[in-house]
Amino acid sequence: MENNKLKIGIIGLGTVGQGVVKVLSKYDDIEIVSAAVKNINKQREVTVQNLTQDPYELARNADIDVIVEVAGGCEILDVLVEAVKNKKHIVMANKELLARHGAMLFDLAKENGVSILYEAAVAGGIPIIMPIKTSLKANSFNFVAGILNGTTNYILTKMEEENLSYEECLKKAQELGYAEADPWSDVEGYDAMYKIAILANIVFNKRIDINKIYREGITKITAFDIQIADELGYKIKLIAQAKKAQYDNKEMLDIRVHPMLVQKSKAISEIKNATNAVMLDGFPVDKVMFVGPGAGQFPTSSSVAGDILTLKAEINRREEILPLMACHHSVYAEQADIEDTINCYYIRISTRNNPGEIGKIGTACGEFGINLSCIIQKGTNQDGSATIIVITENSIEKNINKMINKLESDNYTKIVNKIRVM
Amino acid sequence: MENNKLKIGIIGLGTVGQGVVKVLSKYDDIEIVSAAVKNINKQREVTVQNLTQDPYELARNADIDVIVEVAGGCEILDVLVEAVKNKKHIVMANKELLARHGAMLFDLAKENGVSILYEAAVAGGIPIIMPIKTSLKANSFNFVAGILNGTTNYILTKMEEENLSYEECLKKAQELGYAEADPWSDVEGYDAMYKIAILANIVFNKRIDINKIYREGITKITAFDIQIADELGYKIKLIAQAKKAQYDNKEMLDIRVHPMLVQKSKAISEIKNATNAVMLDGFPVDKVMFVGPGAGQFPTSSSVAGDILTLKAEINRREEILPLMACHHSVYAEQADIEDTINCYYIRISTRNNPGEIGKIGTACGEFGINLSCIIQKGTNQDGSATIIVITENSIEKNINKMINKLESDNYTKIVNKIRVM
Repeated sequence: MENNKLKIGIIGLGTVGQGVVKVLSKYDDIEIVSAAVKNINKQREVTVQNLTQDPYELARNADIDVIVEVAGGCEILDVLVEAVKNKKHIVMANKELLARHGAMLFDLAKENGVSILYEAAVAGGIPIIMPIKTSLKANSFNFVAGILNGTTNYILTKMEEENLSYEECLKKAQELGYAEADPWSDVEGYDAMYKIAILANIVFNKRIDINKIYREGITKITAFDIQIADELGYKIKLIAQAKKAQYDNKEMLDIRVHPMLVQKSKAISEIKNATNAVMLDGFPVDKVMFVGPGAGQFPTSSSVAGDILTLKAEINRREEILPLMACHHSVYAEQADIEDTINCYYIRISTRNNPGEIGKIGTACGEFGINLSCIIQKGTNQDGSATIIVITENSIEKNINKMINKLESDNYTKIVNKIRVM
Repeated sequence: MENNKLKIGIIGLGTVGQGVVKVLSKYDDIEIVSAAVKNINKQREVTVQNLTQDPYELARNADIDVIVEVAGGCEILDVLVEAVKNKKHIVMANKELLARHGAMLFDLAKENGVSILYEAAVAGGIPIIMPIKTSLKANSFNFVAGILNGTTNYILTKMEEENLSYEECLKKAQELGYAEADPWSDVEGYDAMYKIAILANIVFNKRIDINKIYREGITKITAFDIQIADELGYKIKLIAQAKKAQYDNKEMLDIRVHPMLVQKSKAISEIKNATNAVMLDGFPVDKVMFVGPGAGQFPTSSSVAGDILTLKAEINRREEILPLMACHHSVYAEQADIEDTINCYYIRISTRNNPGEIGKIGTACGEFGINLSCIIQKGTNQDGSATIIVITENSIEKNINKMINKLESDNYTKIVNKIRVM
């Protein structure tokens, strides 16, 4: 940091990258030395003096103190590795790369005495990484959960408020820029999975294997499920969660992303549209919740700029900077298999409209030790079939699956949807 | 910090002080050297080796790195001044002292190169000071507001849920330990006023004169007001807020604490019982909200311990520690007078049950340029009087007061309650 100016190289000048340039423009003591982009001649809202198509130039530029990585994707990993080896601090928003390769990158940062900050990687503009690592540092947490994907929350909110199908709401979200042309990563829960992996990592101080995270998106949720849930006092949300649990007498981390019925009395059920929320439960703090914009040019830039300003206040003043923000663990978590987890379930069953069907369901549940807290038949369908909805008490997932197999073994009963209850 | 052990002196071993001792007990590298208490022989849940009745002993003890002040009250100021002059860092939860004497104390800390951290002073266990000063540092805020007092929120929640009087709910709160025997500071809004002064200070980077903060408690709110508000789609909350506003063509800070009607669709209306919430609105982040326990032994200890661990990570490693956490401003804010502020109002009027009364109200409003968005008469009272409720559109407070004076100039009309609308 020469002349007290912090020199920055930005990788990626898309929506977020341009936001970061705008937000940093008011700081005379921060200089954007160069930016790496795919297309140099593209029209942009901001001007950066030196554009390059080669991000390695930034990683090797002796004039740069901090690399801001807002390009996304895992291909950029090698560039960041090179930057860290060249003693550059990293500020990044790349959740997928952090969830997949964070452990390696954090180790390398420690070796090279640099910081990696990533407030923007989880829940956009909401401060969550820094509070967990500083103000909440004395806590032992047993639970972190959230609505971490704005696209799916927007779609579910619209389905509920306007009684529209998933497909119609996805189209609306795409028109408004809330969903990408290829919405796969959002609607199938991958984006939320990366984020809960990052949160679980810092909340439980354990490495997380994302391949062991159970993941289910929102594509199978129908307006009918949302309506039934509403009648029963629930909303349907895509919840990403990680909690300490004892399964089979073993202390595990139960980490997963899937739709859930959330009681309307819970504050998280009120999180609407593209808003994100993160809940934590620990000792001594008890329950806290953080709510705010989970994406967007400016909210994301707020977090990136906050990291840069935090670094700037620390940099070049002593050898080890921001010790609390470093990764201090290297042990992998014992992660639970979804089959062993315990949940309540909403199960929508299509079957024959025969007098004995409810009895059959009750018998099958009894056989696998499943107690029901609610069973309702929603009239008769036009094709003569009957729709029956059950809500179970706490049951082991594998027993639920066995019960479902049993019910589906006749050729007229079908489980249309199975949604866990929060 | 000898032998890598952080040495602490605690002033006050009440509920919070004992919580801090419990929470810190798991850290081998933090030593509680001594505690200052009023009564040495009192039975306590924790043991501290050296107890003294003289807090100056701690301020002068060369062995102590950090003074943790959880005694409360302004009499402790001189002790903290002496501690800062002796180069001790301060971690404190004392909102009144910070709101009244923070400016002086922060100046002194800067002179002496020490840090004053006070995460626990506002909103108990919720991380809010540190996020504003770090992750959200790039923002320019125009609004901060919150439910910052758990006692009054508990009372209002109970009044609403159980349709009980203020007095009954206060008694309940006292029985449960949510309200003190002398509830004055809480129910009259002083506690929330100190907290919003501290928040406004760091959110707007201006010194705040608490004598210029308009303050009104909850003692005049009745179950009837809550019921009418409910029918109109509102809840009544004690809101502390600070916002940038243009009044009389001047940029002002409008800071105040008073009950408000809050639309049920706003998330803050859902904050129940002793829970606190802080909302911020700024650029680039947009709106964020933090929710959690606003008081209590352990939540408060979480914040105190977070500050201590943050200090510990920084201390003795370089000359200027935690530069972002210091106070960097010395200019007082232009604070708005409540008479100049613009609000919507809920006004409950008791008058004669005569055909002309609604017309009179409408005429008086018209005379002072006040538009009404709602006017309802709630039947006739047993004494023959009529209760009329109006909700106004945005109006200047002094015009509202003139209109009220005009209405009250006959000898049968009385304004029973005036509550601002969020």
